[in-house]
Amino acid sequence: AELAARIPPAQRDEVEERCAEFMALPITPVQELRDHRDDMKSRMELMIMGTQAEVCRALAEADGNSSFTVDRWQRAEGGGGISCVLQDSKVFEKAGVNVSVVHGYLSEESIRQMKSRGKSLKTKDGKLPFCAMGVSSVIHPKNPHVPTIHFNYRYFEIEEADGNKQWWFGGGTDLTPTYLNPEDVIHFHQTLKEACDKHSPTFYPKYKKWCDNYFFINHRGESRGVGGIFFDDLDSAPKEELFEFVQSCAKAVVPCYLPIVEKHKNDSFTPEEKLWQQLRRGRYVEFNLVYDRGTKFGLATPGSRIESILMSLPLTARWEYNHVPAEDSKEGEILKVLREPRDWVH
Amino acid sequence: AELAARIPPAQRDEVEERCAEFMALPITPVQELRDHRDDMKSRMELMIMGTQAEVCRALAEADGNSSFTVDRWQRAEGGGGISCVLQDSKVFEKAGVNVSVVHGYLSEESIRQMKSRGKSLKTKDGKLPFCAMGVSSVIHPKNPHVPTIHFNYRYFEIEEADGNKQWWFGGGTDLTPTYLNPEDVIHFHQTLKEACDKHSPTFYPKYKKWCDNYFFINHRGESRGVGGIFFDDLDSAPKEELFEFVQSCAKAVVPCYLPIVEKHKNDSFTPEEKLWQQLRRGRYVEFNLVYDRGTKFGLATPGSRIESILMSLPLTARWEYNHVPAEDSKEGEILKVLREPRDWVH
Repeated sequence: AELAARIPPAQRDEVEERCAEFMALPITPVQELRDHRDDMKSRMELMIMGTQAEVCRALAEADGNSSFTVDRWQRAEGGGGISCVLQDSKVFEKAGVNVSVVHGYLSEESIRQMKSRGKSLKTKDGKLPFCAMGVSSVIHPKNPHVPTIHFNYRYFEIEEADGNKQWWFGGGTDLTPTYLNPEDVIHFHQTLKEACDKHSPTFYPKYKKWCDNYFFINHRGESRGVGGIFFDDLDSAPKEELFEFVQSCAKAVVPCYLPIVEKHKNDSFTPEEKLWQQLRRGRYVEFNLVYDRGTKFGLATPGSRIESILMSLPLTARWEYNHVPAEDSKEGEILKVLREPRDWVH
Repeated sequence: AELAARIPPAQRDEVEERCAEFMALPITPVQELRDHRDDMKSRMELMIMGTQAEVCRALAEADGNSSFTVDRWQRAEGGGGISCVLQDSKVFEKAGVNVSVVHGYLSEESIRQMKSRGKSLKTKDGKLPFCAMGVSSVIHPKNPHVPTIHFNYRYFEIEEADGNKQWWFGGGTDLTPTYLNPEDVIHFHQTLKEACDKHSPTFYPKYKKWCDNYFFINHRGESRGVGGIFFDDLDSAPKEELFEFVQSCAKAVVPCYLPIVEKHKNDSFTPEEKLWQQLRRGRYVEFNLVYDRGTKFGLATPGSRIESILMSLPLTARWEYNHVPAEDSKEGEILKVLREPRDWVH
C-alpha cells in the first residue's frame, strides 16, 4: 500500500508489483531485493511477505472485512519485522501473522539449542553470524467450534568460522480444535498431503509424524492438537526444490483453514463449550512457553520483539485444578485423540 | 481429622496431637515419624504439614468459612503429597496449598539443573537417591486490590555414590500486587524482615535481594511482583539453626498476608482494574512456565503430580498484543516498581 502510493502501477517492475500487494514495505529495501532477486534470501523474503498478505486478506474477509493492525518494527541488532494483528474482532479472539527478517550473531543459548539437535557449528571466538527469516502465525477464533491454526515457514543461513555457509528450511502447519470434527480434520490433512505429494510421496507421512512428535505436551501426555506437518533442518535436497516445497506448503494455508472457519464461524455454542475452549487455551500456553522451539529461540535472542513472539498466546486462558472430563463426553472424545494421534488420510 | 476420629484425645502423644490438626494424615506413617522424631526429615514433615493447616485455616476463614478440597496422592516412584485447593470461591480465584514428600532417584534433567547452579554431585551409574519435602502455595484472589502471594519452604537430602549425604534448605515468600499500595508492601516486607532478624541481621537484606533477582521475567525486563525473600541451597550454618529460621519464615506467612486480604477483600473495583489484573496474571504464567525452578523440577521429575505443580497457575489469564499503559496511570505506577525494585524497609 505504501509502495502503491509512491510508484504508479505502469512504472512498476515485477518486484515492485509484488511488493504493492504486501501489508507493508519489506524489511530489506526494495532496491536490494531487486538487485539480488535470484538470491534465496530475497526470494524467501518476497514469498513470506506474500504469504502474510494472502492470509491476512482471507482472515479479514472471513471476519467481515475487518482491518488488521500493522506494526513494522526494527531490531537494533539487525533486521526487523512486520506484525499484523486482529484482536477481539468478530470471528477471531486473536489472529497474529508475523514476518521477521533478522540478522546478527546467534546467542549462546541458541547455539546450545541448535547443537543439542545435532548441528555441528564451528564458531569463531564463540560468535556465529546468522540470518533468519520467516512467516509465523497463530489464529485463535472466538467460536469453540472453529479450531486454532498455527503455521510457520522459515529459512536460516549461518556462516561458520571457516567461511562455510550452512542453510536450512523449517516449517509446518497444524490444527488445534476444541472439539473433534473428523470431517474438518480430514479436510485439513488432505489439503496438506496434496501440497506435500506434489514434491515427494515421502514428505507427508514423514512430516505428519514429525508434527505429532513435536507438538507433544510431555508433562500432560497429550498432543497440543490434531497435528498437521512439521519439519526442521531441511538441507539435504537441492535448495531450489526445498524452496518450491515450502512455497507449496505456505500456499496451502488458506485452502486448509478458511473453509473450516466459514463452515463453523456462525455455529451456536454453550457456555460449557466456551469453558472447555478456555481450558484448552491453557494447554496451548503450556506448550508454547515450556516446549516450543521458536518461542525459546525468540526469548533467548537479544533485542527480539517480545510482543511479536508472544502474539501466539491466546487472548484468554484458564486453568482449573484437576479438571477431568467424563470419558464418554465430547471433551473426553477429543482428549482420546490427543493422547493417541491418528492417521487421518492415506 | 482422620486421626482425631481414630485416637481419643486423652490417649494421644505429642506427635499425634500435632497430626490431629493437619489437613490429612502425613505422607510418612505417624508411627515412623514418632520413632524418628529427632530426624530432620520427620521434623520438617511435621512443620510443613502444620504450615499447610495453619494457612488453609486462615484463608478459609477469610473466605467466609469455606472448605478446602483436600487431595491426598501417592507417587508410584516413592512418597506423595497433600493438595488443598479453594477454587472460584468468595474471596479467592484460586488458592492452592500443597505439601509434598517425595523420594527416589533424581532425573537427569534435575541433576543437570542442580549442577548448573554450582552443586558438585557424585553419581553412581548416573543415579542419585534423593528425598525432598516442602510446602508450596500460590493464592490468587478475585479482587484486583488484593495481591497474589506465593510461598514455598523445602528441605532436600541427596546421597552421593560414596555415601556422603548432602542436605539443604530453600524457600521464600513473595507478593504480586496488581496495583501498588505502598502501605501493604511495607507491612509485608516488615513482617518478613522481623522473622529474618530473629536469626541474623544479614538474612533479610541478602534474601530480599536474591528474591528480586530470582523473580525476574527476563524477556519482559520486569519483576514478577514486589518481592519478599528467597533463598536456596542453604547448608553452611548448623542444620538446627537453619531449620529454626525456615520455621520462622513459614510462621510469618499468615501475619504477612492475611491483614492485607482483610483490608481489601471488600474494596470496590472497576472492569478496567479487573482487566489489568488479568494481564498481570498472564505475566505470572510466563514466569512460572519459563523460569521457575520448582516448576521445572516438577515437570522434569517422572511421576510427579502435574495438577499439584500447576496449581500455581491462575484460574484465568489474558494476553493482549502490545498493551502499553500510560506512564502516569495507576498501571504505569506499578510497572515502574516492577522495572526498578525498591527497598521497602531498612
